Amino acid sequence: MQMTEQISKEHDREQVAFLEKELRYIAGIIKQKGRKILSNYTVTPPQFIALQWLFEHGDMTIGDLSTKMYLAFSTTTDLVDRMEKNQLVMRVRDEQDRRVVRIHLLKEGERVIEEVIQKRQNYLQDILSDFDAPEVQQLSMLLQKLHVEMKED
Amino acid sequence: MQMTEQISKEHDREQVAFLEKELRYIAGIIKQKGRKILSNYTVTPPQFIALQWLFEHGDMTIGDLSTKMYLAFSTTTDLVDRMEKNQLVMRVRDEQDRRVVRIHLLKEGERVIEEVIQKRQNYLQDILSDFDAPEVQQLSMLLQKLHVEMKED
Repeated sequence: MQMTEQISKEHDREQVAFLEKELRYIAGIIKQKGRKILSNYTVTPPQFIALQWLFEHGDMTIGDLSTKMYLAFSTTTDLVDRMEKNQLVMRVRDEQDRRVVRIHLLKEGERVIEEVIQKRQNYLQDILSDFDAPEVQQLSMLLQKLHVEMKED
Repeated sequence: MQMTEQISKEHDREQVAFLEKELRYIAGIIKQKGRKILSNYTVTPPQFIALQWLFEHGDMTIGDLSTKMYLAFSTTTDLVDRMEKNQLVMRVRDEQDRRVVRIHLLKEGERVIEEVIQKRQNYLQDILSDFDAPEVQQLSMLLQKLHVEMKED
């Protein structure tokens, strides 16, 4: 490997600083936008994140859910209790191993998640009206690459 | 304007759905990463966001700060009280209009913010090691455009 090749991997500090700031600001706007959409529903932001995990990964134990959400086990238990009360989820005992309890997404929970995600997509569709198709493709590709690298970290 | 031109602005639903998901996941990882970095400091995530606003925009009233942070006035007052106790900020009375009080960032607050942002930049520098220079530039350009569109919304 050539020396120059190694050096090329260190990006310009100004550029990285700029990118960090843009990502931070965009993350903040997405967060606020998401909260605004959620304010029309009876679910709180952490409840929504839990619903999303169940929607995308199927039934999960409270342990799995607390790991994914970076929350304490007791906090996740409270969260699930409230969602069960609101009939968004239910606890289901494993048929093979009765000691294992999993959280199962109910129809109403599914409906909420689908509606909220649809609204977020509509918002993004709006935001992208000044982007042309190759720009959207390029952005998708680069964000996917960034996401993969972040997960490997 | 031609009909085809208007149609071209509506992006493929699958593509937008993908992009929404990538942005949501990346925002989540950035948030968790930021919390992990902050856990070595005495400041909480909302305190850090307040410090950032003061760092980037100079002295602000509690009213301004609560608007920027989408927090209730009373919540922001509590936040500022705790930061003042920890000598991260101080309340300063306006020389011209003594009724106006602004929050001023102190040296220690500045030090915390600079260290944390530096660590975030180092993390991003790491993450970008498999990106070449044109990719980083393209990503910066597209995110800046996205940010501008989001602000105009």
